[in-house]
Amino acid sequence: MAIKINETHDPNLTSWVESSNISGNDFPIQNLPFGVFKRTHVDEEPRIGVAIGDQILDIAACVRANLIDGPAAESCFSSHLNDLLALGPESWSILRLHLSRLLRADSSVYQAHYELSDQILVPMSQATLLLPVEIGDYTDAYASIYHATNVGRLFRPDNPLLPNYKFVPVAYHGRASSIAASGSEVRRPKGQIRQLADDQPVFMASTQLDYEVEAGIIIGPGNQLGAAIPISQAEQYIFGICLVNDWSARDIQRWEYQPLGPFLAKSFMTSVSPWIVTMEALAPYRSPAFSRPLGDPQPLPYLFALGDQAQGGIDLTVEVYLCSSLMREQHIEPMLLSRSNLTDMYWTFAQIIAHHTSNGCNLCPGDMIASGTISGPSEDSLGSLLEITRGGKELLALPSGERRAFLEDGDEVIMRGFCERGPYARIGLGECQGCVLPAELPFKG
Amino acid sequence: MAIKINETHDPNLTSWVESSNISGNDFPIQNLPFGVFKRTHVDEEPRIGVAIGDQILDIAACVRANLIDGPAAESCFSSHLNDLLALGPESWSILRLHLSRLLRADSSVYQAHYELSDQILVPMSQATLLLPVEIGDYTDAYASIYHATNVGRLFRPDNPLLPNYKFVPVAYHGRASSIAASGSEVRRPKGQIRQLADDQPVFMASTQLDYEVEAGIIIGPGNQLGAAIPISQAEQYIFGICLVNDWSARDIQRWEYQPLGPFLAKSFMTSVSPWIVTMEALAPYRSPAFSRPLGDPQPLPYLFALGDQAQGGIDLTVEVYLCSSLMREQHIEPMLLSRSNLTDMYWTFAQIIAHHTSNGCNLCPGDMIASGTISGPSEDSLGSLLEITRGGKELLALPSGERRAFLEDGDEVIMRGFCERGPYARIGLGECQGCVLPAELPFKG
Repeated sequence: MAIKINETHDPNLTSWVESSNISGNDFPIQNLPFGVFKRTHVDEEPRIGVAIGDQILDIAACVRANLIDGPAAESCFSSHLNDLLALGPESWSILRLHLSRLLRADSSVYQAHYELSDQILVPMSQATLLLPVEIGDYTDAYASIYHATNVGRLFRPDNPLLPNYKFVPVAYHGRASSIAASGSEVRRPKGQIRQLADDQPVFMASTQLDYEVEAGIIIGPGNQLGAAIPISQAEQYIFGICLVNDWSARDIQRWEYQPLGPFLAKSFMTSVSPWIVTMEALAPYRSPAFSRPLGDPQPLPYLFALGDQAQGGIDLTVEVYLCSSLMREQHIEPMLLSRSNLTDMYWTFAQIIAHHTSNGCNLCPGDMIASGTISGPSEDSLGSLLEITRGGKELLALPSGERRAFLEDGDEVIMRGFCERGPYARIGLGECQGCVLPAELPFKG
Repeated sequence: MAIKINETHDPNLTSWVESSNISGNDFPIQNLPFGVFKRTHVDEEPRIGVAIGDQILDIAACVRANLIDGPAAESCFSSHLNDLLALGPESWSILRLHLSRLLRADSSVYQAHYELSDQILVPMSQATLLLPVEIGDYTDAYASIYHATNVGRLFRPDNPLLPNYKFVPVAYHGRASSIAASGSEVRRPKGQIRQLADDQPVFMASTQLDYEVEAGIIIGPGNQLGAAIPISQAEQYIFGICLVNDWSARDIQRWEYQPLGPFLAKSFMTSVSPWIVTMEALAPYRSPAFSRPLGDPQPLPYLFALGDQAQGGIDLTVEVYLCSSLMREQHIEPMLLSRSNLTDMYWTFAQIIAHHTSNGCNLCPGDMIASGTISGPSEDSLGSLLEITRGGKELLALPSGERRAFLEDGDEVIMRGFCERGPYARIGLGECQGCVLPAELPFKG
């Protein structure tokens, strides 16, 4: 079921883009993630590129220079990936192979046309990275049993993990319009908050602003309404993966979420990292599905496939860093808050897709499905402040001497993700970053 | 705050389209709802029209014939209303006035060009009506306190109405991709169902398929992310209204909905009526907001405006009819199941918009916000079978001698909506119709 390892994954490959060969960089030639960019301060159309070291390969420019061709390459004259997404895995794979061959140190095409490198490369430092996808529908899952248990304990002490959790890959519809690219400022939301159990609610700025570190898959070709996707085919519908910060206002959430689920506590902003790492690039880092403890029910047949059990996980490490205004003033490095791994998810993305479409619901090119908060079993793998501070009760000490229950204005949250395994190259997802701004003043209306 | 009554509402107006002058028809000249159509079996582009009697006025054809002009009219060469929606209330109003003047019995433009009527009118019987809007985000509210209490009693007998209900215009994100035009077939969904409390869930076709009758508003110009819409301005963001059938699988819903809300129980299909009746057309039928009983909390200030209290309601009657296969065979007319009214909503659409954007969430042209099930206080005003049959316990008798707990295959659900008041013309929303097909056979995968 998972994509086979091929020549593009060869750990011995290097590129003529020297910065991509530096050990530890997120974008070696084995990665080639797709994004949308334009040169900052240049009046030009956004277009599709791949990250290579500290550069962006401008695919449209490569097509114009006759260095590559084909329908996938030609879909890159666009301000979003959606047309490319609709083409499907074979087209993506052909384009990826062409790009890999073009970027290799021994590329004959490059050697014949090395004078073109200024035309086809844009330094990342001179580019603005945009939201890469027009996201039609956004679904957020809840796939970490550790997160579900930790949060459940705070919201429902007597009933932390609900009885459906081990049967249903629980998910809900999120707000698509407020998904923004990494780097977008995060305005502290206002909302109805009930501070004590018998109080009247008041409308005020959230005092319990939080992040959640997640991974999001981007859907390639969709399915027809009414035609469920069998789990054995589910991965063919995934183009790639990015980091997601599901910013959350816990005080708003606690009051609003019954009975229809989270709404305004989440819909003020969701940040995503700008580079979509393809499922093909992730092939060397696949892992077995979550190993259910003895006594846990087996997945129902529509959620079970041998290939998914064997390879449905992704060995992706995600890290969250925090940097306060004071830390920036004092030149203190961002503080690592957590390091967790996508293999700790109770449900695989294939299971989530099979479930999502099992009622006939149609997925479309550009839909995003996020994992839910990636929390692991250990104290240093908790993917939200809610979990780290036990709902704000155990303050977090920052290296500046400050303390945090939840996020303060000026706090910057940085998420990073990467895969490394055995002989294979380390590849990264880049960063998902956002800085908290104070709440808006009252309505002008 | 509400739109003023003007010459387009004059009850004495008649049209040269004779069928629109027949008493009781949904589309008199005082209505002029917008939709998207193409002629059935003709290979042509869909475009925007307004309903007038049993005809569709082809706005694009009117522009081509130089009968009307302006940016709003020119936006009607499109397969969806979104460009028109983005233009805003002044443009809509000017276009509506031009269309009204063109269609009046004494129209001088028409009298000068009556030979064009074949070019600018398409009989509705020869047209296919399409989904009129590209819906970006779909939000479903829960604005009937009667419905919330009835359903709460079935799902949580000890706790029917949650403590937030009278403070928060509760809503959740729905699935946009599976919204379909009236007339689309409704495939019975499959899903995880737990039949008895201690059973293991099984994956099977829903046996508790239901409808919910709702009204949906279509958003015109959107707001910027971070810029809340004050309640006093909220109605300016609404283009118009349609009927919504929020098809629901109760057995799937009961098992999946905790803690993140309804998901697959609803996302298999949502049907909408094809004609969007504008807020301007609704001006004569506005009503005060719900009259809260003594002891109920007043809305928080961000949800309170004098204009909204005085005129935020809409006196829209909605009816639901059921017709089984057997009834069709026996030529029995569809049976009226309920008649309810949008003025029974505890929350107005302006309150829902003010709440929805109060955290900074951005609405976009073409978003749909549905009211939630429109149930009133009386037994004949219950907007879902769940409420009518008390969760399937009290069977509904059909005139064919059949009985129903929930919908059976072959059942057709027809929703109608209309406004009538005092001297003003009766205007209708048309129909939202759907027929239930059997569940799909098992996955071919």
